Amino acid sequence: MQQSISQAPPIEMKAQSAAPQHLFAGVDIGGTNLRIALSQADGTILARTATTTVGIRDADQIVALIRDGVLDLLAQTGHARESLVAIGAGAPGITNADTGVVIATSYLLGWRDVPLREKLEAALGVPAAIDNDVNAAAIGECWMGAGRESSDLVFLAIGTGVGAGIVLHGAPYRGASWLAGEIGYMLVPGVSTDPIRRGEPGALESMVGGEGIRKQWQALWDAEGSTLQRDLTATQIFEFAEQGLEQAQAILKQTARMIAFAIYNVSLVLNCPLFVLGGGVGLHPVLSQAVQAMLREQREGSQPTVVTSALGADAQMFGAIRLALYASSLPPA
Amino acid sequence: MQQSISQAPPIEMKAQSAAPQHLFAGVDIGGTNLRIALSQADGTILARTATTTVGIRDADQIVALIRDGVLDLLAQTGHARESLVAIGAGAPGITNADTGVVIATSYLLGWRDVPLREKLEAALGVPAAIDNDVNAAAIGECWMGAGRESSDLVFLAIGTGVGAGIVLHGAPYRGASWLAGEIGYMLVPGVSTDPIRRGEPGALESMVGGEGIRKQWQALWDAEGSTLQRDLTATQIFEFAEQGLEQAQAILKQTARMIAFAIYNVSLVLNCPLFVLGGGVGLHPVLSQAVQAMLREQREGSQPTVVTSALGADAQMFGAIRLALYASSLPPA
Repeated sequence: MQQSISQAPPIEMKAQSAAPQHLFAGVDIGGTNLRIALSQADGTILARTATTTVGIRDADQIVALIRDGVLDLLAQTGHARESLVAIGAGAPGITNADTGVVIATSYLLGWRDVPLREKLEAALGVPAAIDNDVNAAAIGECWMGAGRESSDLVFLAIGTGVGAGIVLHGAPYRGASWLAGEIGYMLVPGVSTDPIRRGEPGALESMVGGEGIRKQWQALWDAEGSTLQRDLTATQIFEFAEQGLEQAQAILKQTARMIAFAIYNVSLVLNCPLFVLGGGVGLHPVLSQAVQAMLREQREGSQPTVVTSALGADAQMFGAIRLALYASSLPPA
Repeated sequence: MQQSISQAPPIEMKAQSAAPQHLFAGVDIGGTNLRIALSQADGTILARTATTTVGIRDADQIVALIRDGVLDLLAQTGHARESLVAIGAGAPGITNADTGVVIATSYLLGWRDVPLREKLEAALGVPAAIDNDVNAAAIGECWMGAGRESSDLVFLAIGTGVGAGIVLHGAPYRGASWLAGEIGYMLVPGVSTDPIRRGEPGALESMVGGEGIRKQWQALWDAEGSTLQRDLTATQIFEFAEQGLEQAQAILKQTARMIAFAIYNVSLVLNCPLFVLGGGVGLHPVLSQAVQAMLREQREGSQPTVVTSALGADAQMFGAIRLALYASSLPPA
């Protein structure tokens, strides 16, 4: 699995490509959304589509949606089915990238030991590669995003959940049992050290995940009152912080402080120079600035660079395309 | 540098070996001690020697001591100089294993950018390999010690200093600038989050390093008084804890709790199943038991295994021998 994520020219969006060519499908399977892109080997996306998966838990149904979507994109762009070389997919759960089995996902899909790679290969007749979605995002950022100049990066997905995808020496690092980067459970100063029961959110996630930030705002609101609403999303709070509202700034600062602690700890372990923030909460640019400022305060000497994801919600899909390239025998262009 | 640390038969100490053979020298350069071993490719140590380095800071003087020691061991065991195939050394500081340069050590040696590999090769006329001493210990434990059945382990050196050596997929992981595993600075619940100035001990080290434990005992002594002495070493405190003395048990528990937090955090990042405790403080068996108990409490589900180093003070030397095998073109026996 130690293949380097090669660098490639900048992304261009093209509606149509005339020349017959080797094409790759990248799939981002979310808890509620399915996104599919058809791409050239250099990461140029020719067409894309998205659909909801709400109410659909059956893996075969999801695979049928993927197959139909990919065939549709091929038809739309005037390519024969034979142009498709390989498919890659990011799945929202613990994924064995070697055997191609999704070991477990959250309740939204409720998958257990789904041989997704095999199902995709059977449905489309091409090689497939799968990985965890956060790993896919890290791979995507390293290939086409904020880590294009780097062979080592940590992608921090901060949304409802909190987790990290790790690329070391140009290759995804997944851990002994596919659980590397599970930093939503990290114990940093200020989090609860109460024992965690199965299925409960981790200590760090409870503080800096979307729900955690929301609850902290509500606690502050209950204690101090505010001219703002009691029910705000993390993104709204960050926007108020940007506008200079003190209470929102306090929540932003506290969130940034804990994320900085976590990045600091991960950086001590891995000595990785680049951290990329993504996910619904992590994408807000004000957060990476605040985190970087906190890191500078923590210790004299060089600190890792913290940036916002360059690919945004597309990070996982680009990673999935890169996985498709891994699955094929073709090198990335 | 991605060579696997192969497994080998159990260690036997032999005073003498009759057959002419390929021999390897392993060197553990400490802040105050220099230890040298002459070994077969299977890790069987034929002879060893140790000397003090107190008052010696000059790298060329240390290299001369190493050369004399190795030649002496060859002579002692009746081997020609030509039997020596390669030499490996662990150095107490930041070490570039690729270029063979010791970038910086603590004040005891005070080295800056010392081309140690080159100097060793010039002195002995054989290939040399060098690494940081904690990395060497991790390599040693994985080859011949507590990690013989594992391809992934984290060696935690807990002594005056606190740091970790990491082996992933059978190869040492050293980080982008040779600083991986610098966990003495880790921020876990209960440590100070005050900014760290250059040269100061890290937040975790201040609590669980030898000096930290000593100071915590003194603080407890000042607050509560005790029938025991005010000045005790960490090892003495752990012994009193083993004997059932409550105050000593409180210090042990607090130390184990913070080490458990750190192991938990490292384990979240790396998903590494085995942690080996070593170093003057870490070697006390009561500590690994206490840490493992704390980990079990922290979270439902599988936790990493925590064991005491099997090689003790020899871990680094065995790692250095393994480094010598890397440096040679011969596979380990």
